[in-house]
Amino acid sequence: MRSHTLAELAELLGAELVGDGERSIEGIRPLDRAGPEHISFLHNPKYVAQAAESRAGAILVHTTDDLAGRNLLICDQPYLAVARTLELFHPRPRPEPGVHPSSVVGDDLELGPDASVGPLVSIGRRVVIGDRTVIGPGCVVGDGVRIGEDCILHPRVVVEDGCRIGDRCILQAGAVIGSDGYGFATVDGVHHKVPQVGIVVLEDDVEIQANTTVDRATMGETRIGRGTKVDNLVQLAHNVQVGEHCLLVSQVGISGSTKIGRYSVFAGQAGVAGHLDIGERTMVGAKAGVMKSVPDGSVLGGFPARPQKEWMKTQAAVQRLGAMRERVADLERRLSAVEESGKERS
Amino acid sequence: MRSHTLAELAELLGAELVGDGERSIEGIRPLDRAGPEHISFLHNPKYVAQAAESRAGAILVHTTDDLAGRNLLICDQPYLAVARTLELFHPRPRPEPGVHPSSVVGDDLELGPDASVGPLVSIGRRVVIGDRTVIGPGCVVGDGVRIGEDCILHPRVVVEDGCRIGDRCILQAGAVIGSDGYGFATVDGVHHKVPQVGIVVLEDDVEIQANTTVDRATMGETRIGRGTKVDNLVQLAHNVQVGEHCLLVSQVGISGSTKIGRYSVFAGQAGVAGHLDIGERTMVGAKAGVMKSVPDGSVLGGFPARPQKEWMKTQAAVQRLGAMRERVADLERRLSAVEESGKERS
Amino acid sequence: MRSHTLAELAELLGAELVGDGERSIEGIRPLDRAGPEHISFLHNPKYVAQAAESRAGAILVHTTDDLAGRNLLICDQPYLAVARTLELFHPRPRPEPGVHPSSVVGDDLELGPDASVGPLVSIGRRVVIGDRTVIGPGCVVGDGVRIGEDCILHPRVVVEDGCRIGDRCILQAGAVIGSDGYGFATVDGVHHKVPQVGIVVLEDDVEIQANTTVDRATMGETRIGRGTKVDNLVQLAHNVQVGEHCLLVSQVGISGSTKIGRYSVFAGQAGVAGHLDIGERTMVGAKAGVMKSVPDGSVLGGFPARPQKEWMKTQAAVQRLGAMRERVADLERRLSAVEESGKERS
Repeated sequence: MRSHTLAELAELLGAELVGDGERSIEGIRPLDRAGPEHISFLHNPKYVAQAAESRAGAILVHTTDDLAGRNLLICDQPYLAVARTLELFHPRPRPEPGVHPSSVVGDDLELGPDASVGPLVSIGRRVVIGDRTVIGPGCVVGDGVRIGEDCILHPRVVVEDGCRIGDRCILQAGAVIGSDGYGFATVDGVHHKVPQVGIVVLEDDVEIQANTTVDRATMGETRIGRGTKVDNLVQLAHNVQVGEHCLLVSQVGISGSTKIGRYSVFAGQAGVAGHLDIGERTMVGAKAGVMKSVPDGSVLGGFPARPQKEWMKTQAAVQRLGAMRERVADLERRLSAVEESGKERS
Repeated sequence: MRSHTLAELAELLGAELVGDGERSIEGIRPLDRAGPEHISFLHNPKYVAQAAESRAGAILVHTTDDLAGRNLLICDQPYLAVARTLELFHPRPRPEPGVHPSSVVGDDLELGPDASVGPLVSIGRRVVIGDRTVIGPGCVVGDGVRIGEDCILHPRVVVEDGCRIGDRCILQAGAVIGSDGYGFATVDGVHHKVPQVGIVVLEDDVEIQANTTVDRATMGETRIGRGTKVDNLVQLAHNVQVGEHCLLVSQVGISGSTKIGRYSVFAGQAGVAGHLDIGERTMVGAKAGVMKSVPDGSVLGGFPARPQKEWMKTQAAVQRLGAMRERVADLERRLSAVEESGKERS
Repeated sequence: MRSHTLAELAELLGAELVGDGERSIEGIRPLDRAGPEHISFLHNPKYVAQAAESRAGAILVHTTDDLAGRNLLICDQPYLAVARTLELFHPRPRPEPGVHPSSVVGDDLELGPDASVGPLVSIGRRVVIGDRTVIGPGCVVGDGVRIGEDCILHPRVVVEDGCRIGDRCILQAGAVIGSDGYGFATVDGVHHKVPQVGIVVLEDDVEIQANTTVDRATMGETRIGRGTKVDNLVQLAHNVQVGEHCLLVSQVGISGSTKIGRYSVFAGQAGVAGHLDIGERTMVGAKAGVMKSVPDGSVLGGFPARPQKEWMKTQAAVQRLGAMRERVADLERRLSAVEESGKERS
């Protein structure tokens, strides 16, 4: 069990210490499960009361407000400090360097000195694996693949022929990089396969999570920009271009040849049609379906997706349709009465 | 070919026999494909006519009504009897106990005497595998994993470090248990990974089907309750808590930290936002998107999800919008005429 | 680097040559990335101007219109010619025939003379693998499986016990064929597994893409018709019958026992409920949810799915709900005024 004094933690995290610097901290826990030997964290003001009651030995906070008398580490970005504290208390074990004897390696593997290839891995020919990269059990790496430094491939990842992975990328279990795109030339109702001879490029610091699929380009590249994070069970079709620092949440589908501008966010189960141009910093709501290109800074919801506010207003109007029907029926009754009395009068 | 007399089957199933107990039955088939050597079943009154015409040698039924003269096995739960009959005629072959020599096993494996580890499996250190559990070809089991008794892991399942699987669990091919959750601390648009150091716990009698993903908790546990059955390609995010005996149908997505009460059902492609509390015995319709916490016994449809009846009424009203537009136009014409005649009169 | 003269290409593709037959062509590229050594293609009139400006040494076209003075190959089906040209310049490398020594093979394997089983594959007992079929690294093939000739199984595909794959099928990485269907007999809220003892049959020329799942039938067969192409992350449930030459785009879900008529198309993230009969040549729009059986030639959109035109009209009406509310309010004001003046008069 690793432990740090609170003063050490303050220094490691670049945080300001308030309280007992000598207190020994053995781990990090949420407010409701922390004890005196743990540090906890408050990054949502909603939980101030819970923080006040927590048994935590110290708390990572943004401000000292409302927590007088507690041991605190004050930092600009408490959630980032949580990430760093988790790394401190849970360092990733570094597997043995080299190739496990049960693995099968093709000719001309170029392997970084501290890189590790786990058991039962299949590596093709002319593969480059950067230093300190870890290839987990059961992975398959195709011919001519290049993987950068400090990457982690979790178990059973597939990277097919010719694809390129940048530095510090993380691929979660079951992810498939470089499967064939869905391309067919249909003649008289019969679908003839169009060979998919392009590749996939993941730039640096990309994470692709479990059982997500990224298709290779028909020709050229499918490209995922630096720092983009893709959740589980997402589909990225052939020739898609995702900009830097995007977030694509679980079960999103991006159709072929669509471009997503950087810093965009797609919430869960959203989708976008093919051959579109999605501007930078676009926000797409859960389950939305984007059917047209949109400019930078768009905020979209619904299907077909419209500006989020407009969609919400429309949803509200739809909810009041019953009331509107009653108003129309009332108008009809009243107007008939007026018409009737008009006839009587004439 | 295994065979049973109808009298034997009646006893094995705890059913009441009507007809020829000596008839030999060699298998179970649907009504339209059963012959005199098969038993069939009727668990939906819609198919009574088909049952009457079936060539089946016997039929599993709930009641003798309308099937006079047929060989019948009468039971309270005909579909449960179908399940048991399928087990009788299709016993799962038990693979050789022990570890296949092509597999790679870390230190300190604790393996039940009749447990079986198939070919090309990678097992980490300090793993416990219960008695009679079967690990299929190509599976990857991480360090410190505990798997109970009588489990079946189909080919290419991944259970990552530290996760715990109860007794009698079934994991279908390609399922991933314990992948990292989607957790990032975003600072100035850059997403910093939050280490995911929790685990996944599957309680007893859970089934997770093909290519479904269950993320480990950030801290603590993602937990799937006893008897819950999860279909293919479902996403269960970090820190999710699913109660006992739930059904989550294909392509459902449950976002992070959401709690689902026991006996709840999510139909295909439904989703629920994060950090919500979904009451017990909640029914969520296909493609619905639940955006708020709901009490026990809720029945929901649409997106954003509302009570199912209200949603259906709204859908019907939307269908009649064209008619309403015509009524409004008609009102406008008639009212103009009334206004005109009023002007003439004054 | 392979190269062909334009005259050779014309002959290989059955195209009409216009221009310099001696020009040497070394590859095929999109219009904007082709150089004088490449052939490019124009199959959408939208790109005529781009074609005119392209540096391509030759262009595959349907007609000579608007491209006077360029080297052209004129063909009836330019996109099919693109597919064939890609095959010419990117022939799939044929792996070594036979079984890689790291693979594990059960008794009685029947292997075509030029078939190839890659590294770390697990093959069950009594398996038949047709001639020239390629089984990629890490695949798992169950007992009694039959795979036809000229198939390609990409890495980490699973085909479970008893399933049958036709000739010229392609299975992309991570696809699962023959996982258990989602079948339970629920008694008092507890879900008892119904053994799934049927199989999956893929007819000839089927392609199943990455991480898609096809469940085995409860009894009998789940069947995917000849020439049908299924994109990534699609769910095909037990007992589904998909006709010939269908297209099922990414993240589509087909529920249990539903039949899809031939030549039908499901766009991305669409779904269909169970036990339905979907007519031939049905078109289902993106994200649509089909809840009823439909006749041949249906064109559907929305959820619950309706005829596409009706759905679009309804969507437009919903967008104009705000305007309608104003018209109703205006009617109410005007009618009140009329009623008021009527009262004054009487």
